[in-house]
Amino acid sequence: MTASPPAPQEPLTPGRGTRLDPWYASYAERTHGMKASEIRALFSVANRPEVVSLAGGMPYLAGLPMEIVAEVTDRLLRERGAVALQYGSGQGDVALREQITTVMAEEGITSHPDDVVVTTGSQQALDLVTRIFVDPGDVVVAEAPSYVGALGVFRAYQADVVHVEMDDDGLVPEALEATLTRLAAEGRRVKLLYTVPNFHNPGGTTLSLERRPQVVEIARRHGVLVLEDNPYGLLGFDDLTENPVMPALHSYNPQGVVYLGSFSKTFAPGYRVGWALAPHAVRERLVLASESAILCPSNMSQMSIATYLSTCDWRGQVKSYREVYRERRDATLHALAEHMPHATWTRPAGGFYTWVTLPEGLDAQAMLPRAVTELVAYVPGTAFYADGTGHRYMRLSYCYPTPERIHEGVRRLANVVNAELDLVRMFGTGGAGTRLAGTLNPGPNQA
Amino acid sequence: MTASPPAPQEPLTPGRGTRLDPWYASYAERTHGMKASEIRALFSVANRPEVVSLAGGMPYLAGLPMEIVAEVTDRLLRERGAVALQYGSGQGDVALREQITTVMAEEGITSHPDDVVVTTGSQQALDLVTRIFVDPGDVVVAEAPSYVGALGVFRAYQADVVHVEMDDDGLVPEALEATLTRLAAEGRRVKLLYTVPNFHNPGGTTLSLERRPQVVEIARRHGVLVLEDNPYGLLGFDDLTENPVMPALHSYNPQGVVYLGSFSKTFAPGYRVGWALAPHAVRERLVLASESAILCPSNMSQMSIATYLSTCDWRGQVKSYREVYRERRDATLHALAEHMPHATWTRPAGGFYTWVTLPEGLDAQAMLPRAVTELVAYVPGTAFYADGTGHRYMRLSYCYPTPERIHEGVRRLANVVNAELDLVRMFGTGGAGTRLAGTLNPGPNQA
Repeated sequence: MTASPPAPQEPLTPGRGTRLDPWYASYAERTHGMKASEIRALFSVANRPEVVSLAGGMPYLAGLPMEIVAEVTDRLLRERGAVALQYGSGQGDVALREQITTVMAEEGITSHPDDVVVTTGSQQALDLVTRIFVDPGDVVVAEAPSYVGALGVFRAYQADVVHVEMDDDGLVPEALEATLTRLAAEGRRVKLLYTVPNFHNPGGTTLSLERRPQVVEIARRHGVLVLEDNPYGLLGFDDLTENPVMPALHSYNPQGVVYLGSFSKTFAPGYRVGWALAPHAVRERLVLASESAILCPSNMSQMSIATYLSTCDWRGQVKSYREVYRERRDATLHALAEHMPHATWTRPAGGFYTWVTLPEGLDAQAMLPRAVTELVAYVPGTAFYADGTGHRYMRLSYCYPTPERIHEGVRRLANVVNAELDLVRMFGTGGAGTRLAGTLNPGPNQA
Repeated sequence: MTASPPAPQEPLTPGRGTRLDPWYASYAERTHGMKASEIRALFSVANRPEVVSLAGGMPYLAGLPMEIVAEVTDRLLRERGAVALQYGSGQGDVALREQITTVMAEEGITSHPDDVVVTTGSQQALDLVTRIFVDPGDVVVAEAPSYVGALGVFRAYQADVVHVEMDDDGLVPEALEATLTRLAAEGRRVKLLYTVPNFHNPGGTTLSLERRPQVVEIARRHGVLVLEDNPYGLLGFDDLTENPVMPALHSYNPQGVVYLGSFSKTFAPGYRVGWALAPHAVRERLVLASESAILCPSNMSQMSIATYLSTCDWRGQVKSYREVYRERRDATLHALAEHMPHATWTRPAGGFYTWVTLPEGLDAQAMLPRAVTELVAYVPGTAFYADGTGHRYMRLSYCYPTPERIHEGVRRLANVVNAELDLVRMFGTGGAGTRLAGTLNPGPNQA
């Protein structure tokens, strides 16, 4: 049934373009901020099996009961296939939204399904919240460092990100207060405080119980909406009978917080299902924005997860994930203590990441090509700052490799660090060559 | 494991908000253009089973071989579940992208998987193309009328839509030339020509073979990128041995056209899988924009479709869809001829829609509440114009109801039209009351 097309006309060369990209001059202003990073090319190498990747944020799925997931999906398609494969509601499947309120109750959140919007991963929720709030030049305040994928979204909407200091207890309230006061005095419009309070990506830290109401209150007083991103909240490693799950920021002021959740870490990312819980009027805008962006989230994905949640022991699955990741966190901390005496690092109580501070004079971004040559990969700290700083840091992810591989990876990394240190001591500068240009775009590798 | 949150602080009342929406004054400028339509509320009524809905664009899925889909999915999860449920590539699964090039070859498109970006439905592709090209105030040229979901995207990016006349042979080249010349003289930046060349939504018309190279050439000469939206291209009703599938606009000038395709109409919308085929440099930007928006499309959805395409007779399924929709198109045209002698309508050679012109003096938007009271629904023409016109038109969808229901729906609609006509003849104006305010947001109902 193929028709042969007429011969093409002469090639297109609109006057405004370039030889490599005829449409170069047609792009929107926001597009010129989107750059593929040189680091990206390195990561494609880092995906080779001989490389120990401490870079990716891919959850460990081998522990999923695949037989049960297959059975559940089979029944879904046979019994309700014509609904699962059809268009659905822009806001998301109501049965799933009800279950999401149950999941959030584990973190002290009282919510109604009407105020939940299901999104294509919580990344889309980040995009939609930014879309409805941020004009070019508006300020988003975020921890230093901050999630690379969120920084990418803020950049795409031409926001100015202003970082606020974080320590082992998370965002520092005094620093937040000082920053918001200064920005107000400068007449800047601060639209959002973006924060990852639990098992921070990339910091590995958790906002202390004491600071939670302080942070919410400071934002409230300054009229700044809190964007609470919490993909890892249920993945804490402590004994939960002694040390309860931290209350979400949302629970202190539901009208002042948009809360983002995700099934990517507690179940599986391949469905791309996350959500936003928002004040009523904001939720209405989010639904309109989402319908414009994608019409509706996948019914098949949503109903697969809803069926899994209602028929399987999902709390047991989350518990087994916690045990896997705790073992890997321990392996990482042991290996760092054994091999990297000159560095320091955070001690995550949950989640996927630890944040390593290199000895003075080292540059994690410049060192990356050498590390990949030595068959180990990480994400340099620069990816997590909007202001071009962060060279001395690296994020190590322990979620995907086995404890043995983690140990081997940290050992290789230590060799690279030590070789760099020798050069610094001898010549006053590292040997890894020039800095790589370009900001890191969020890819699944860095999720 | 629930922690009881401390008592909430005093309720938030940022100075800039309103009583109903404390965040009202914080929204981005683009957000104030997003309005829930009063029509929307009517559609929720229209979903009641006693209403014959000629409004929705939901494909008819009862014809899908659900047993086979369930088997294919079961095998996918058991054999490759750990990949299907994991994060994937931002550009999309390479196996699916290869199959997409085969699907596009049916319409005369020669393409490489590297130039395909998989998206969350082709709606997301529309969003991403607009995102990378359109600054506020830029012009998008589109047919009059045009797909409501595309108009919503253009509005979300603050584009000015300028409509160009269409007739039974599709977009009128002379009108396109005149419009682009006028806009250039006015110094406007025209970024995109958005067009649905096959079985137009909502027009039901198809761009003639003769006009295709003309339209592409006019856009090329004016340096305007063509955005070719083709969800229905394979759903033509004519005998394909005599009347081949029309060549895509893309086949005339691959460097000047971004082509959008979708599995929503040829397979099923519930997976939310569509794609864009774009010139190389544009494709790179689309991938960066998509990673920022959603990280990556669903592996589970993509691999489900890839497995279906490679193991099932998808061409046979498309053929059976064509037969179902042709029968329903015929039912619609017969019913219109029988019951609506005072109206005119297009005769679609494929796709889901016919476009009805009401007798002078009638207003399809004002008439809608009365129609819903009479248990029939349609989408008024105003939804498909960015300039507030279109009151005399309505879109009738025949994709979802059975031929019997279509006949009954058109009969009910004719009663409403005739009653309105009587009023117009007596009093010079219809009786349906005041016009509904608000533009129609694209929802799954109007896809």
